[in-house]
Amino acid sequence: MAASSTFSAWTLKGSALVPKASKSNPEFVCNYLDGSIKQKLHSMSMSASADTSHSWIFPYEKAIDWRRGKLSLKSGVQCRALDVETKPSFSVGNKFELEDVIEGQQFDRDTLGAIFEVALEMEKIEKNSAGSQVLKGYLMATLFYEPSTRTRLSFESAMKRLGGEVLTTENAREFSSAAKGETLEDTIRTVEGYADIIVMRHFESGAARRAAATANIPIINAGDGPGQHPTQALLDVYTIQREIGKLDGIKVGLVGDLAYGRTVRSLAYLLAKYKDVKIYFVSPEVVRMKDDIKDYLTAMGVEWEESADLMEVASKCDVVYQTRIQRERFGERIDLYEEARGKYIVDRNVLDVMRKHAVVMHPLPRLDEITIDVDVDPRAAYFRQAKNGLYIRMALLKLLLLGW
Amino acid sequence: MAASSTFSAWTLKGSALVPKASKSNPEFVCNYLDGSIKQKLHSMSMSASADTSHSWIFPYEKAIDWRRGKLSLKSGVQCRALDVETKPSFSVGNKFELEDVIEGQQFDRDTLGAIFEVALEMEKIEKNSAGSQVLKGYLMATLFYEPSTRTRLSFESAMKRLGGEVLTTENAREFSSAAKGETLEDTIRTVEGYADIIVMRHFESGAARRAAATANIPIINAGDGPGQHPTQALLDVYTIQREIGKLDGIKVGLVGDLAYGRTVRSLAYLLAKYKDVKIYFVSPEVVRMKDDIKDYLTAMGVEWEESADLMEVASKCDVVYQTRIQRERFGERIDLYEEARGKYIVDRNVLDVMRKHAVVMHPLPRLDEITIDVDVDPRAAYFRQAKNGLYIRMALLKLLLLGW
Amino acid sequence: MAASSTFSAWTLKGSALVPKASKSNPEFVCNYLDGSIKQKLHSMSMSASADTSHSWIFPYEKAIDWRRGKLSLKSGVQCRALDVETKPSFSVGNKFELEDVIEGQQFDRDTLGAIFEVALEMEKIEKNSAGSQVLKGYLMATLFYEPSTRTRLSFESAMKRLGGEVLTTENAREFSSAAKGETLEDTIRTVEGYADIIVMRHFESGAARRAAATANIPIINAGDGPGQHPTQALLDVYTIQREIGKLDGIKVGLVGDLAYGRTVRSLAYLLAKYKDVKIYFVSPEVVRMKDDIKDYLTAMGVEWEESADLMEVASKCDVVYQTRIQRERFGERIDLYEEARGKYIVDRNVLDVMRKHAVVMHPLPRLDEITIDVDVDPRAAYFRQAKNGLYIRMALLKLLLLGW
Repeated sequence: MAASSTFSAWTLKGSALVPKASKSNPEFVCNYLDGSIKQKLHSMSMSASADTSHSWIFPYEKAIDWRRGKLSLKSGVQCRALDVETKPSFSVGNKFELEDVIEGQQFDRDTLGAIFEVALEMEKIEKNSAGSQVLKGYLMATLFYEPSTRTRLSFESAMKRLGGEVLTTENAREFSSAAKGETLEDTIRTVEGYADIIVMRHFESGAARRAAATANIPIINAGDGPGQHPTQALLDVYTIQREIGKLDGIKVGLVGDLAYGRTVRSLAYLLAKYKDVKIYFVSPEVVRMKDDIKDYLTAMGVEWEESADLMEVASKCDVVYQTRIQRERFGERIDLYEEARGKYIVDRNVLDVMRKHAVVMHPLPRLDEITIDVDVDPRAAYFRQAKNGLYIRMALLKLLLLGW
Repeated sequence: MAASSTFSAWTLKGSALVPKASKSNPEFVCNYLDGSIKQKLHSMSMSASADTSHSWIFPYEKAIDWRRGKLSLKSGVQCRALDVETKPSFSVGNKFELEDVIEGQQFDRDTLGAIFEVALEMEKIEKNSAGSQVLKGYLMATLFYEPSTRTRLSFESAMKRLGGEVLTTENAREFSSAAKGETLEDTIRTVEGYADIIVMRHFESGAARRAAATANIPIINAGDGPGQHPTQALLDVYTIQREIGKLDGIKVGLVGDLAYGRTVRSLAYLLAKYKDVKIYFVSPEVVRMKDDIKDYLTAMGVEWEESADLMEVASKCDVVYQTRIQRERFGERIDLYEEARGKYIVDRNVLDVMRKHAVVMHPLPRLDEITIDVDVDPRAAYFRQAKNGLYIRMALLKLLLLGW
Repeated sequence: MAASSTFSAWTLKGSALVPKASKSNPEFVCNYLDGSIKQKLHSMSMSASADTSHSWIFPYEKAIDWRRGKLSLKSGVQCRALDVETKPSFSVGNKFELEDVIEGQQFDRDTLGAIFEVALEMEKIEKNSAGSQVLKGYLMATLFYEPSTRTRLSFESAMKRLGGEVLTTENAREFSSAAKGETLEDTIRTVEGYADIIVMRHFESGAARRAAATANIPIINAGDGPGQHPTQALLDVYTIQREIGKLDGIKVGLVGDLAYGRTVRSLAYLLAKYKDVKIYFVSPEVVRMKDDIKDYLTAMGVEWEESADLMEVASKCDVVYQTRIQRERFGERIDLYEEARGKYIVDRNVLDVMRKHAVVMHPLPRLDEITIDVDVDPRAAYFRQAKNGLYIRMALLKLLLLGW
């Protein structure tokens, strides 16, 4: 297929385009001529699939940017290939290659295990007062469309503990203020010129995925509205692994707001990747776990049951995962909120029936759903859990910027 | 005393627990079983006091964190010791050991002198364009519950001039927003996982003390509401030392808002630690110095008098310390405010009667209580005073993180 | 002329005062006794002009600060010299010496060319993953009186890509809040104690110039209200140079809001420094280019014409510079706004008539004045233009802090 006469044609020939294998896996971003579709292709897949029967046309040689060992084809790129919609295999060997962190579902059991190994290395690095220089010279932008100080500080600490630098904004909405109305895509294209990786918090579900489809640098979703918050899900599973020593065969009680709590829903999803897991749902009637997750667990062969007896569940579980009842979910019905929030409290009576090796977890912040006197018990794992978020984020930053 | 059966017992044996003496003095944080009381003990004191008649029970070996040369016993720690409420001696030799900077009163004359020596070293470091790496690898969190750009930038500059890194938040209230309601203590436990030292600004008196009681890392109070702002008090005294060359025997005129001005109150308090100091109070009637400070000075043997004659006071003093009349203190009574603010102005007429070696100080910001034409006089010390804040904060950061 | 009796006199003797030539050009800031006027003198010029017939009186030897290789005379400095109002030559050889970046007009053609050469070096530095340490140990304060995330992140990225550090504030108004009322000059004197260079965004025209007149460290204007935004003007000219390969003899179409658009006005001004430039103005009637720029271009011998035919202009130009119609300029007349904004859209039809080597530029953010399908065309230069802002800012930071 001939390129338009304004373009010089350049045909992709497999391995010739594979860049120095020094940094994370290179990718090719191709914009179709109608400008509406983007597709990311691994060079590995391309070198296999881009045989001579396809013509890959790149309009501008100077649009290619070898920035940081990564071959990016900039905005002025067109791909014409008949079979480009055939999704290429993303696997090299058996290992998932990290490009972006968008949602919990993208990780399989092996990848989770590999990430957790890196997180464990990160614990050692963080404890070393000399300070790591692993990410020296790298710049992370925290692009927050709504403030989330806790999450932002955790990511920024992770980057700085590895010797990297940070550009911060908590009022990213200003980029696209009412009067101005810039699209998220345009904002991302501007910010990717300033940084090597973007950590994004947004108020709209799916925003992180849109950002990743646009960006030539890695995107980490730090929460997109009611959607995903994958690093929270990862740190929860990592904490169970660290505290209990295993994930297969564990019994987990999910307590509190199971209807709206993003964390418990994600956790249930991820736990389904492990064997012989048993999940107990303990929640006030108005915020019971929704059917989508229950159906998913059933389909995956995960045993689950609902219970109204926290004491009995606590006595059997490895993990009691408590959550906050969110007042904002109840609107005017303060009475329902007050009834719900007082129903299942983790206190010393609950601790008394819990097993010696078991732990209490909570995504924080907490109100009074865990009483303060629980804090001194070594089985109170929630502040260690928060700290694990640092290690998981260090691991992801390292993996996305430098690879395994 | 036997530990509960879920705990392994571990008996403290003095020197065996003293960590490598590389960093600041190690501390043991003990939570009582009821969770409500905390006590910090120096290992030095503990090794003396923890004789065999007490049982110190640590429930979890993995709760011990040797982070950065500091032995911290994490949240799952219980201490049971009959005499732990007997406050241990915090002294090692004759030197006060810095753990936190919470209030001006914690410093004695010798400690102030020692801090000022370090601040003087810091002046040299700051002027060296190569940049110091003294705090390389250390991370400071500025946890500001209300904005104070001036104070925040001063601390952040101090940290960066020493090669350290910073995590910033000016909307720390978001951590514990109305809907969420996290306690200050929980916030501190989260943030201490991300940083090596916390600089905190809060709107409530006593907040810094509460934070220090919780944290396993050093806390610096950068102002807690109507309470303390100890680094301002230190930089004021340091400026007098630098400008006048001594503190004993000086005459200081405190001018302006003496009733509500936090800085003049703290300064009066600290000056009482020196010999033969004479303090003059010059203020509009409505904002006169309160009796608590007057009584304190009298009790400490410090001579003071009130005067309505700024010219006469200025002619006798080594330091004329002017302050801003704060409009917000007058509510609806704008007439009283206007009367008060115009009463004592430092202008060239005041300079004309001042002694050659004397200086004008002001905590900034100023309105028109010092006229602009005073700025060019070398005795106008207020911008040098602001700069001294940088050196004092560099000194404190160095001392808290690395020790003397 | 005798100094007042409180001052020791110190007479300037040319070369004796020239500091080590290691850093940017030293400057002497002299405050007149009335405190209202400031004058910056290059030492080079001073050593020539300060002959023995003038008495330069410096009141305080300790007011001299050799900070970072720069001789600054601090706040307590008086200059008395009869001819000091005779503006000294700022030239050393033929090269303009950068002290501050305040407005586009300060740059001549040669200086622009020299800056662009440095910007080109910066492209290489930025692409090097190791990270530059050129500005290691230097601290930049971003003092933003109104948020401008795009501009701020660009400057902060520039500083960090060169190994420098940043102090950030986006609420600099808090320094001088209504209740407090500090002057800009006082704020600058405080902040210059914390940093080595200040990047300032302000809502008032002329604010940057006032800051530069006060500061002993370099100031970069990052936009002062309706006034100047010189780094945007520089990056625009640099982009034309990079994309078209020349500036002499180019044809540029300025499209959209020409009445209020700060960028197109500045660009027209700077293009007048080059030879045989032809400018086309294409705008809705209500936002036509104002007469001051037209008169200026005519006086400078620059050919220009107004046109209502975007297609015809596009077919002839090297650069089509599109701008956003700013709704806030139309007040209640939404009808006029809607009519204006739809009038000249750059879409694929415009691209079809454009020359092969020509480019589309836009200062961003854009709404729909350039359609999204233009993005994939290699002639869409606006995201490369945004990236060039990074290189220009890196170049200016390097030049202001280290010199050529």
